[in-house]
Amino acid sequence: MTAIEIVEVAPRDGLQNEKVLVSLEDKAELIRRLIDCGARRIEVGSFVNPKKVPQMAGTDELLAMLPRRGDLTYVGLVMNMRGLERGLAAGIDEAGAVCVSTDGFAMRNQGQTSDESIGVASEIVLAAKAAGKSGQVTIGAAFGCPFEGEVPAERVVAMARKLAEVAPREIALADTIGVAVPAQVSRLVTQVREAIGGIPVRVHLHNTRNTGIANAWAAIEAGATTLDAALGGIGGCPFAPNATGNIATEDLLYMLDRSDVATGYDLAAAIGHAKWLETVMNKPLPAMVSRAGSFPQTIEQKA
Amino acid sequence: MTAIEIVEVAPRDGLQNEKVLVSLEDKAELIRRLIDCGARRIEVGSFVNPKKVPQMAGTDELLAMLPRRGDLTYVGLVMNMRGLERGLAAGIDEAGAVCVSTDGFAMRNQGQTSDESIGVASEIVLAAKAAGKSGQVTIGAAFGCPFEGEVPAERVVAMARKLAEVAPREIALADTIGVAVPAQVSRLVTQVREAIGGIPVRVHLHNTRNTGIANAWAAIEAGATTLDAALGGIGGCPFAPNATGNIATEDLLYMLDRSDVATGYDLAAAIGHAKWLETVMNKPLPAMVSRAGSFPQTIEQKA
Repeated sequence: MTAIEIVEVAPRDGLQNEKVLVSLEDKAELIRRLIDCGARRIEVGSFVNPKKVPQMAGTDELLAMLPRRGDLTYVGLVMNMRGLERGLAAGIDEAGAVCVSTDGFAMRNQGQTSDESIGVASEIVLAAKAAGKSGQVTIGAAFGCPFEGEVPAERVVAMARKLAEVAPREIALADTIGVAVPAQVSRLVTQVREAIGGIPVRVHLHNTRNTGIANAWAAIEAGATTLDAALGGIGGCPFAPNATGNIATEDLLYMLDRSDVATGYDLAAAIGHAKWLETVMNKPLPAMVSRAGSFPQTIEQKA
Repeated sequence: MTAIEIVEVAPRDGLQNEKVLVSLEDKAELIRRLIDCGARRIEVGSFVNPKKVPQMAGTDELLAMLPRRGDLTYVGLVMNMRGLERGLAAGIDEAGAVCVSTDGFAMRNQGQTSDESIGVASEIVLAAKAAGKSGQVTIGAAFGCPFEGEVPAERVVAMARKLAEVAPREIALADTIGVAVPAQVSRLVTQVREAIGGIPVRVHLHNTRNTGIANAWAAIEAGATTLDAALGGIGGCPFAPNATGNIATEDLLYMLDRSDVATGYDLAAAIGHAKWLETVMNKPLPAMVSRAGSFPQTIEQKA
């Protein structure tokens, strides 16, 4: 039995790319339900300009509505030092910074070159640590870019090596637009791990082309310690209009439970909460295990 | 660069579990389109009682409508000797027989015990070979049973060893109800390969719980030579009401193309034909690459 950590990203990366505006009350309820089914590290929101990302308005207020427990880590996405200051004031436990592998995506996403985004992310990690909090960095479009196409693995490895200088809690490789395949994930996770010493590798996957769960398994086999996932598989990507969401927490749990990989989550509870989330979003969500049911559960048992 | 063979099963396992009755003309057009995008081994239909499976009526007539070429293999599913005779008379190149891992499923699926189903399948393989055709066997519910739950790997390995005595073209392991996970697929493919000498192993997967593509990759890594897939991901399972279909040909192709695994298929052509199939079925199909598009293809290129 091995173990893997899941960062639940439904409240941020999931909701951010959904059209339906979700109230702070529903977001707080979602986070309480995530905790109930086993989530302990949760990306609760971001501290960006609410005019640009209306779904993320009020993350400060949201944090004040959440339970506080020593075993919970609330992660806030921050894109610059002002966002970090807001996050720290609101009481985040961890700052998540983002840099992007290509200039084309970095300019459109955050108005920086790729190199500039490394600098800003490093500064955020150092400042978060100076404030006594945790700081980590995600490398966006690590497996492919919607503007520049293939991204050389060497570029991502070089970025990870540079980021490792500020000793973040972990470095994440994000398949932001859902193009990765398992062989690529195996290779890149292995290469990045070799480049950054003992710093843990997290992997962030989207299931846009049906490879998300295969990529998750490849990441685990290659030694990633942590995976992002979103209840119900909600989300998308503003730069990839047909992209579906993050890999679904309950689909990931199903695979891991049946593979004797411990997560600390309760799959049955997660399925129940995913059904509640469907009522909030008012549409069927992409996750499949919530629809098909778990296994083993025979037809006689179901009846 | 390695290579893998795909058996296209949309015309049989795919359509059989769809409610919309598809005309013989549309089936023939589907098969012509499958050939156009690279399919060379195609499960065209079954020779069962048309009162029990109306979608499979007229497979004899369908075969007469199809192009005949030396590089094409038309597979017919047969459940008994009478079906084999019909298939041979209709001109199939290969008979596909089925046995089932549990008595509970075997009785409901074909009115036999599991052991009896091995005997019938073996008889079909021998008779097909005696008629100068190819014969192969699929072990149904090899990764789990909707009636009996977990299926011991030892049972499946023992079945494969018994079937190997009649030297079928290959032995297939079928995740009929879509419950397998990659670690299980790796283990079972490896164990069965060790038990049956040089007989090739095919794997038949459904994406019911979002593990289908992950399982396909695990099967390839464990040495399976052939995978079943259905264009569009059409299909289901009569004994698993919420099951979605076979793994989608185009989703499989996307993963394999980007992993330098040769298939002989053209992904862009497959996507085009999947869109045609959606118009025939008159609903969105589960395959995801047809919706999201392939990669690398940048937003500029698309515009």
